[in-house]
Amino acid sequence: MKKPLILVTNDDGITSKGIKVLIEEMSKLGEVFVLAPDSPNSGMGHAITVDTTLHIKKSPIFGEIASFECSGTPADCVKLAKHEFLNGRKIDLVVSGINHGSNSSISVIYSGTMSAAIEGAIEGIPSIGFSLDDFHYDADFEHTRPFLTKIASYVLKNGMPQGTALNVNIPKKQDEEIKGIKFCRQTNGYWHEEFDARKDPHGRPYYWMGGYYVNREAEAEDNDIWALENNYVSIVPCKYDLTDYLALEKISDWDI
Amino acid sequence: MKKPLILVTNDDGITSKGIKVLIEEMSKLGEVFVLAPDSPNSGMGHAITVDTTLHIKKSPIFGEIASFECSGTPADCVKLAKHEFLNGRKIDLVVSGINHGSNSSISVIYSGTMSAAIEGAIEGIPSIGFSLDDFHYDADFEHTRPFLTKIASYVLKNGMPQGTALNVNIPKKQDEEIKGIKFCRQTNGYWHEEFDARKDPHGRPYYWMGGYYVNREAEAEDNDIWALENNYVSIVPCKYDLTDYLALEKISDWDI
Repeated sequence: MKKPLILVTNDDGITSKGIKVLIEEMSKLGEVFVLAPDSPNSGMGHAITVDTTLHIKKSPIFGEIASFECSGTPADCVKLAKHEFLNGRKIDLVVSGINHGSNSSISVIYSGTMSAAIEGAIEGIPSIGFSLDDFHYDADFEHTRPFLTKIASYVLKNGMPQGTALNVNIPKKQDEEIKGIKFCRQTNGYWHEEFDARKDPHGRPYYWMGGYYVNREAEAEDNDIWALENNYVSIVPCKYDLTDYLALEKISDWDI
Repeated sequence: MKKPLILVTNDDGITSKGIKVLIEEMSKLGEVFVLAPDSPNSGMGHAITVDTTLHIKKSPIFGEIASFECSGTPADCVKLAKHEFLNGRKIDLVVSGINHGSNSSISVIYSGTMSAAIEGAIEGIPSIGFSLDDFHYDADFEHTRPFLTKIASYVLKNGMPQGTALNVNIPKKQDEEIKGIKFCRQTNGYWHEEFDARKDPHGRPYYWMGGYYVNREAEAEDNDIWALENNYVSIVPCKYDLTDYLALEKISDWDI
């Protein structure tokens, strides 16, 4: 039987720890093709490169595995892989990550990792974004391995609903073993920004974005923040149709 | 009565034609505060600036109107305005645009214009993104004016559903007058990319992203592409909860 073709990308860049672990695990399941940003793209959202050029070169870092690094965004990587580098070949699965930090709740909107997965879904390919709920610079990714293969092989075997990308967040390494997997919805919350205003050596102001997360529904138990806080892997299916159908019903009678 | 406070931003940059028209019209409805990118941010999606500094300076181009230009993305502009520049003041409306080109169908995902509006919705502020369905460099924005004031004043007076941002697309200038406004859903479609591969003067390859739009539902009449093609202004309410609830039902019984 022919091996499935798996496209691997991420937003932390091709030299990051997370993509290495993901490539190693995906290599057990199929033929891996890597096309990832040549530098970190955190917070890149669903940006694409329309007004400037894209530069791509072969990367030697994963040995025998076909690997390319690209000056573009995570969404660019998926587009380039499908339409230029793998032109004509069917991609069986897009996986993105493992992101160094959580993409639960509203972070999915800002996430380069998830934009690559959603781009895969737009292209009609089963797609998964993996993130580790640990921002520590020396975060341990080892405990994520069995979940990567379990979820990816399930999707390769059974498919997934059309137009959906899975947002998978994995709890950080703890003494207690991860309890299992929860299918959930995106938590309603937001980042409250606090800007750190400074002066440059010429006296001109500049800012660093910072802040804290605010959970609008700390009591609910069916969402991704609850799952992570209770040591479960969270899986939220995400769609690219942003239409708010409930709001559409409400505003359709506006006298305008 | 106190004038409403209206935050204006965009993704084409503070010197673009579209934002000038939008500012002129919003000034009729309230007190306008402008914080917009200092350069074009098309295709920026919901990117935010987390790994580098943000630079902001006062801009003189709109005379008496408080105006600032920023090195960041459209979403950054909304965050900066709310949490740093207008700290403590209630923003009554966020408007973004007028984008030079359509943001109908899947383009909403890549749109910097709409990311600013969606950021406003995340912050709990009624928010609208305006786009003109005309990519021509010399596009005429004049005919959009009555629709900007009509829609914005309606929202200022009546509010809008919480957690929603309106994606408003206006047909390009034609001989026939615009027929009216349609409330619709996002058209299911995608961009089929074609990359233009070239060599730089050193012989290294580079690419320009191009392509064409593919409509997956050309027969439907309740979506935004249909509205624009039939000379109606389209309004799609968009939400930031990406959860695919139908898919969630389907995958919740996965044996994993």
